[in-house]
Order: sequence, then structure tokens, then C-alpha cells
Amino acid sequence: MRPIYLDNNATTRVDAEVLQAMLPFFADVFGNASSMHDAGATAGAAINVARRQLQALIGAKFDPEITFTSGGTESNNAAILSGLEAMPERTEIVTSAVEHPAVLTLCTHLEKTRGTKVHKVPVDHQGRLDLDAYQDALTHRVAIVSIMWANNETGTLFPVVKLAEMAKKVGAIFHTDAVQAVGKLPIDLKSTAIDMLSLSAHKFHGPKGVGALYIKRGVPFHALIKGGHQERDRRAGTENTPGIVGLGKAAELALDCMDKDNAIIRSFRDRLEKGLLERVPQVFVMGDPVTRLPNTTSIAFEGVGGEAMQFLLNRHGIACSSGTACTSRSLSTSHVLKAMGTPHRQAVGAVRFSLSGYNCEEDIDRVLQVIPAVVKKLRESRPVFAG
Amino acid sequence: MRPIYLDNNATTRVDAEVLQAMLPFFADVFGNASSMHDAGATAGAAINVARRQLQALIGAKFDPEITFTSGGTESNNAAILSGLEAMPERTEIVTSAVEHPAVLTLCTHLEKTRGTKVHKVPVDHQGRLDLDAYQDALTHRVAIVSIMWANNETGTLFPVVKLAEMAKKVGAIFHTDAVQAVGKLPIDLKSTAIDMLSLSAHKFHGPKGVGALYIKRGVPFHALIKGGHQERDRRAGTENTPGIVGLGKAAELALDCMDKDNAIIRSFRDRLEKGLLERVPQVFVMGDPVTRLPNTTSIAFEGVGGEAMQFLLNRHGIACSSGTACTSRSLSTSHVLKAMGTPHRQAVGAVRFSLSGYNCEEDIDRVLQVIPAVVKKLRESRPVFAG
Ligand SMILES: Cc1ncc(COP(=O)(O)O)c(C=O)c1O
Ligand SMILES: Cc1ncc(COP(=O)(O)O)c(C=O)c1O
Repeated sequence: MRPIYLDNNATTRVDAEVLQAMLPFFADVFGNASSMHDAGATAGAAINVARRQLQALIGAKFDPEITFTSGGTESNNAAILSGLEAMPERTEIVTSAVEHPAVLTLCTHLEKTRGTKVHKVPVDHQGRLDLDAYQDALTHRVAIVSIMWANNETGTLFPVVKLAEMAKKVGAIFHTDAVQAVGKLPIDLKSTAIDMLSLSAHKFHGPKGVGALYIKRGVPFHALIKGGHQERDRRAGTENTPGIVGLGKAAELALDCMDKDNAIIRSFRDRLEKGLLERVPQVFVMGDPVTRLPNTTSIAFEGVGGEAMQFLLNRHGIACSSGTACTSRSLSTSHVLKAMGTPHRQAVGAVRFSLSGYNCEEDIDRVLQVIPAVVKKLRESRPVFAG
Repeated sequence: MRPIYLDNNATTRVDAEVLQAMLPFFADVFGNASSMHDAGATAGAAINVARRQLQALIGAKFDPEITFTSGGTESNNAAILSGLEAMPERTEIVTSAVEHPAVLTLCTHLEKTRGTKVHKVPVDHQGRLDLDAYQDALTHRVAIVSIMWANNETGTLFPVVKLAEMAKKVGAIFHTDAVQAVGKLPIDLKSTAIDMLSLSAHKFHGPKGVGALYIKRGVPFHALIKGGHQERDRRAGTENTPGIVGLGKAAELALDCMDKDNAIIRSFRDRLEKGLLERVPQVFVMGDPVTRLPNTTSIAFEGVGGEAMQFLLNRHGIACSSGTACTSRSLSTSHVLKAMGTPHRQAVGAVRFSLSGYNCEEDIDRVLQVIPAVVKKLRESRPVFAG
């Protein structure tokens, strides 16, 4: 039985064209992009092509606004630490309660070790940011705001364009973790007040281990990883040429196919969601049902643990997720659901189905066939639902 | 004409077997190694195999002593910053004057921003560490010592096993930047007092953008990049499965072939060096002529700039280096040569030839054929040597 992969917010398959684009840079054009000989220059030129491909995807005004990194986590860490360093007279951070651990773990660390004040703006039952609380947190003491574009668990979108404008009014640097948004939503940074944006290639059919940080021209930046002069002194270390080329190609493909892909992905997602709501009693869609990523649905099955569902679905060859992959080993209730204070008290977690252009109608049909029985089985094993 | 690549200390060709090992992990076994479903578990298992392959290469006692990173620069940054954080009551760093920028740039930054005292132990004319100065710098105020195993420009080896024992006497953490040593020299960490070791895959025919930090069991460690629980909380971010698998395979191949490869590489290097000394007047081998990497020779041609040599050799299809790749764009005299205070005042820099198992006898012969004329031409253009 063909496995069904519905965990594309955790990571995606590298597109065949992306891999093809990368291949020459392993054993053929393998020179160090910073070397002065031809072997290096060819690699350097390929990196510049990739930079422009990514520039187009995110609508950056200038290609040097893009700094390649090792992924979304590094980009987030670099952005936040740089923001604090750039504004030493300011000591506060504004973020949300539902950020990825790549933001929240760092913030907690800064609170503990430096006494940085971290405002974690709450969200409502549908995962929408509390705009009043956000406004209240914004003062001239805030060095950096970091609010995600799209939540990885529920797909809920935050109004980052507006949030950035609000942050600029108090002179704070505005960063957005757009790891789940880039490649899935149209983005045009040059028309926004967003100062910094993090992205990661493997979330949109590029390779793992490579990402980027957009830094708007004029925004002060202090490198996290220090050493050689690569990336105009913003990220030291020998350039990961194949990875960067792959990121560029994935950006190009995402831009070309976004509208068409999204229409299909959204229709499959809606079909899955609708089908589950029809077939299984007491299920709830978590997060904002409208303002969200086209590929994501997070579903709570009352009385059923997310991990148990994930485990049984895996036995049926269906890969999905409960909680983010990077925290999944800990098996605690998702901080995102906790922050939403979901009223469905019986729900011991939700199951996230995240689709991609590689899914097909049959995937959805099989999932709809399998899930009702799995939920029934799990509910029967819990006395409160029995009978 | 087949290009001749003699810049393997800058970066190496990915071995065909390494690339082959990586390929399934892009589009086939592409799951997130931290996910709980089968797609993730298979990736996670491959990462553990790679960890053991690398463990064998460096002789680590336990495989969890290895943390995968994005490369040598990140590993160096992580090690030094962690050392300072682990010993807040100590505020000094001991390093050498000839470290890679991945160490020195960070140290300079710490000096400026935190007032950290950085002892840069000098070297002699042959690039050998001043052991008395090293001993003098070691006090109970030192949190971390960072001394490279092999110098990237000259290949000179430092006695890190002994240096680590000396550092332990004052209770300092001992880190070594072994980016140029791993894969080229036998290493058995479990029999040493070395606490941390940095390495980078692309220096021994693995892929770019992946490296590791060895952290001896029991040595306190604080993560540089914070977020999810990957790598046992020591390095957050979705695991770069193909990169890590490639690093593991490159480690396996390096271990298997080291003796045989080194014998050949050394003979080519010696043949090149001897040939140049015979054919060109006033040339000098920089660094320790005995205690050095088997693949490296750094040669100063009196009255001739390193960059000019590199430039003309490139026109002949010969790739070599003057200064490290990551500083090469700045065209200043190498800090390594400066630190050695080379007496050959006329030498405006040296040319580094660094070989690998991919070189053949014909490469050396062609270089020996080309260089005398190139040197002659450059010298003639400088009045002091003319006539
Ligand atoms: C919203 C969000 N931010 C950051 C990350 C971290 O990205 P990476 O794993 O590439 O470091 C992820 C995914 O893991 C994510 O979903
Ligand atoms: C001695 C040494 N340390 C560190 C590095 C940095 O490694 P990477 O470029 O993989 O970050 C290099 C090479 O660039 C090196 O030669």
C-alpha cells in the first residue's frame, strides 16, 4: 500500500527538479564559493542566481537583503539576538504565545539569563492574536517583535503586515517567522514594513539544512555565527552551494505553481475536513477556519489523544502529526492548543493533517475510510465514551 | 585541458559513494527525523548510523558525544560560547594567533562587547606554538582554550593532546578546531583529555553545510541555536538528514582509506614541493616542514604576491589558494604568515597547494611545468627582481 504523507508542515519531499538542480554542485562544480579561482567563481555565480530566485518569491526589493542560513531555527535565533544587540537601550521582546519553539525557547532563555522582558501576546479560542494586548505590549522599551506569519500547528495566519506597521510606530524591529508561509502564500516584502523574515527550504520542497533570513536594507544586523566574510559578513561558514541552489530552485517552482497548486491543495484539505466532520461525531477544527494556510487542518477528536491517533494512523501507512515534530518526542499537550484554551476539554490534543502538491484524491479518500474506525476504537477504550 | 584542483583545504569534491548514500534522503526517505511516524523513524535511524560512522573516525567513546551542526564555523562558535557560559566565574580565553577566522572573529567580538580577555598565543617562524607563552596564559581565570589541530594555511600541526592535558590542570575546557585534521589524520579522542572538537564534512569529501561538534561526556554544554529538542537539546532545527548521512559516509570512507590515501597524497605533495625548490630560485616552504598535514604545502615565492600567483595559475586551469577562502576576498596579507613573522620580507604572501586523493601524478607534473615561467613573469614585472 502506497504510504500517505500528510505531514508537510513537518517537512516536505524534495522536488525532482530541485534535486536535479542541486546535483552538479556536489561532485562537479564543488569549489568554495568564496575562492578566487574559476571553481569558486562558478559556485558563487550559482549562489547569486539562487538569491534572485528567492528574492522573487518573497518580493524583496534588493537581493542582498537575503542572507542564507542553515534553516528556520538559525534564522529565528539570529534575528531575535540581532534585534536585541542592535538596540542595547531597549530590553523587551514582544512575541506570541503560539510561536514555534525556535522562538519561544530562545525567549525563555533570554528571560532567565539576561532578564529580558518577554511579552507573549495571547490568542483567542480560534488562535487569533489579541490585538489589544499586542498594542499594549508595544512601547519604546521593545527592541524586537517576533510574530509568526502562519502557525505550524493550526495554519492560522497572523496579520503581520499590519502588526509590522504597529511595531514601527514605537521604533521596534519587526521580525516574522514565515517558515510555514513562504512558498505557500504570496509574499511581497517590499510593500511592507517587515524588517526581518525567516524561512526554511525544506518546508516547500527544498532541501533540509538550508534557509534564509531576509533583512530589509538599512536594518542593523549583527551576525549570530561569526568567522569568515561569507554572506557579506552576516553569516560565516563555507557556503552550502548545493543547498542554496536547491532553495533557489524550490523558490522558483513555488512561485510558478503557487496559484494552481494551492487551489488543488485547498480543495483536498477541505474535502478531508468536510468528510471527517460528516463521518465522525464530536470533531472540531482548531484554529481560524478562514484565515489560514490552504494546506493545513488541525482536528480535535473529542476523547481521543492526538498521539494515539497518530500512532494508529501510522500503522495504516498514514503520516500525520500531533504537535510539532520537534517537540513530538516530549508527548506533552501542545503549547498552541493550551494557548487557545480550547473549550473542547475532552480533546487531549489534535491531529494535524498538512498537505502538499504531492497528495492526490485517493489519499484523502483512504484517510476518510480509515479514520472513523480508528476513532471508534480509541473511544471505546476510554470508559467515558463507551456505550 | 582537465582543470587541476589543488585547493582541498578550501573544500573538497563530494565522493561519488557519499553522494550515492545521500540520494535516497532527498525525495524518498524525506521524513522529519523527529517525527513519530515511519517516514520519520527511517530518517532518524539513518542519522544514528551516521553518528556511529563519525564516532569511529574520531574515536569517540560514546556516540551521543557527537552533535551534528551546519559546519565547522558553527561548531567553533558553539564550543567557545558554551565554554564561557559553562564557567561564568572565569572570563578568559586562550587561543592561538593563527586560528581560523571562525575562532578569531568571535574572540575579537567577545573582547569588544564583553571585555573577555583573549590570550592569542604566538607562534615561531615555522608556525609552531610557543609552549611557554601557552603555559603562562593558563590560569584559573581561563574558561576555555581553543587551539586548532592543524593550520589550514600551512598544515602545521599543534600538539593538542598535550595542550589539552595542560589546560585540564587549571580546570579549563579544552576545544580544538580540527576542521583540517579530521579525515586526514588518525584521531582517537577517547584516549585524550580533549573536551570538544569541531569538524566539517566538506573538508574530507562530504557535503557542505554539515559538520559536528564532539562534546566529551560530562562536559557541560549550552546550545548556541535554541528551539526544538533535536540532537538531545544541543542543536535545534530540523535535522539535515541527507547532509548527516553524507558526513557519516565520508567518515567511513576516510577511516577505511586514510593510510593508503595519505601515503599517495604525501608523495605527490613532496614531489611538488621538491620540484618547486629545484626549479624556482628563492622559494621557501612555510610552516613546520615535518609536523604537518600530509596534503598541504604553503610556498612563498620571494618577490611575488600570492594573489598574483593564484590569478595566473587559475588562467592555466590550476586552482590553489593564497590565504583562506573565506578571507581571500579581502586581499590583505594572511594573519597566519604575519604571526609567523616570516623573515622572507620580499614574500608578499604564500601560495597554498592542498591535495586530495583525487589528484594524480600528471597534475603535479603540469604544475611543475607551469610555475617556473609564471614566477619568472611576475618577478620581471617587479623592478627589484628585474635583470
Ligand atoms: C513556524 C516554524 N518556525 C521555525 C521552524 C524551524 O525550522 P527548521 O526546522 O528548518 O530550523 C519550523 C519547523 O520546524 C516552523 O514550523
Ligand atoms: C581550520 C578551519 N576551521 C574552521 C573552518 C570553517 O569551516 P566551515 O567553512 O565548514 O564552517 C575552516 C574552513 O573553512 C578551517 O579551515
